[in-house]
Amino acid sequence: MATLYEHGTLAMLMAGKLAGTQTLGELLKHGSYGLGTFDGLDGEVVILDGEVYQADASGKVNHVTDMQTTLPFASVHFPENEVPLKVGENDFASLTSNLTKSYQLANVFAYVKLDGVLDQVKIRIAPKQSKPYPGLLEVAKHQPTFEASAISGSVVGYYAPDIFGTVTAGGWHLHFISDDRSFSGHILSLSTKGLSGKLEIFDSFEQHLPIENPEFRQMQVDTASLQAGIEAAEH
Amino acid sequence: MATLYEHGTLAMLMAGKLAGTQTLGELLKHGSYGLGTFDGLDGEVVILDGEVYQADASGKVNHVTDMQTTLPFASVHFPENEVPLKVGENDFASLTSNLTKSYQLANVFAYVKLDGVLDQVKIRIAPKQSKPYPGLLEVAKHQPTFEASAISGSVVGYYAPDIFGTVTAGGWHLHFISDDRSFSGHILSLSTKGLSGKLEIFDSFEQHLPIENPEFRQMQVDTASLQAGIEAAEH
Repeated sequence: MATLYEHGTLAMLMAGKLAGTQTLGELLKHGSYGLGTFDGLDGEVVILDGEVYQADASGKVNHVTDMQTTLPFASVHFPENEVPLKVGENDFASLTSNLTKSYQLANVFAYVKLDGVLDQVKIRIAPKQSKPYPGLLEVAKHQPTFEASAISGSVVGYYAPDIFGTVTAGGWHLHFISDDRSFSGHILSLSTKGLSGKLEIFDSFEQHLPIENPEFRQMQVDTASLQAGIEAAEH
Repeated sequence: MATLYEHGTLAMLMAGKLAGTQTLGELLKHGSYGLGTFDGLDGEVVILDGEVYQADASGKVNHVTDMQTTLPFASVHFPENEVPLKVGENDFASLTSNLTKSYQLANVFAYVKLDGVLDQVKIRIAPKQSKPYPGLLEVAKHQPTFEASAISGSVVGYYAPDIFGTVTAGGWHLHFISDDRSFSGHILSLSTKGLSGKLEIFDSFEQHLPIENPEFRQMQVDTASLQAGIEAAEH
């Protein structure tokens, strides 16, 4: 039995609630592996074995140890029932759709960590925003991208069922981090001759909300336009 | 800090996955108050202080003690930070919209238990289905309703944010149970001169999924039609 913990929601980011609402110290109580972003949508975060790496919009990767750093949105878990995983030659679309089908993930939450060499990888990194914060859809229009080839590292992230697609990123949400921790971000495309790693399927998804935060409590969510906005911002 | 625990999803019921996937014994480990339905969508369940009451489609209320009874869908919690609550003269629409506004519940999960006299209450009770199970939308077309007047009891149930509206019932989902435990069901309408009770706001929502169940793993969810179907089935 394993739990995926999430703080904040994708709907909050869409509504421009980009201020950090949980400290890194608190987040790490709920998991040692995960993904997230910092206060103001500052970069792309990968957490591996309790170590926190943030790729900022300059393309630099920072090893973050200040536990007072805050996050508006993050997902973490403790590994509990990992199973070994191997994938062959793939691009991003075939990798993700093969994983979903082969392991029957459509209706569950899952995590993968796939290690090896990527022949090519393209990532994007969210740039830190200033108040008054725009919504995620606006930010998504102006995100720097970076490419690397013949790079050794890990593809890490979560699968979430479509019905949770306004709460978190529906489908696959994957980041890359190189073995030397110098290149990281949200994956837009990749190609590989093969990767191996681990898969964890969760039976529980714990959604934590910043209920003491007045801006969160007063937030207006337009559910009608939310799904279309998320499609545009996340894909 | 309080957690609302849910087993199963509304999307599963919509897809006709009505077989029980968790025992009552397991469910009660996660809460002593709550709502649910039994295997085959058999009735409307209210849980109060660990005691389980099921209204069946004949209108009878059964005090259930068999912990092997299974449920496809249920929400429970342990009271942790309840605040006192008082409401004046109301019908169902004004009661629920006033609660949402007064306590700023739009974006959070919450529970209310309101005790007192209802001048009028109309309830519906889901009738047990047989395999092959229909979806919730079909079941909703043929549900017996019951009415009572000048009846003393409790209005109990949950509020969920709209963005969780395919996972659980978005907005208010309230059941009634009379003080003498002889009349209970899912509330369609009510009127009262005043009720008093308790409100709990949750900072965590824990969604539990039956990941070992092959029918759940293979379930096809048509997300495009899901929201419209839920509107029709639940309102």
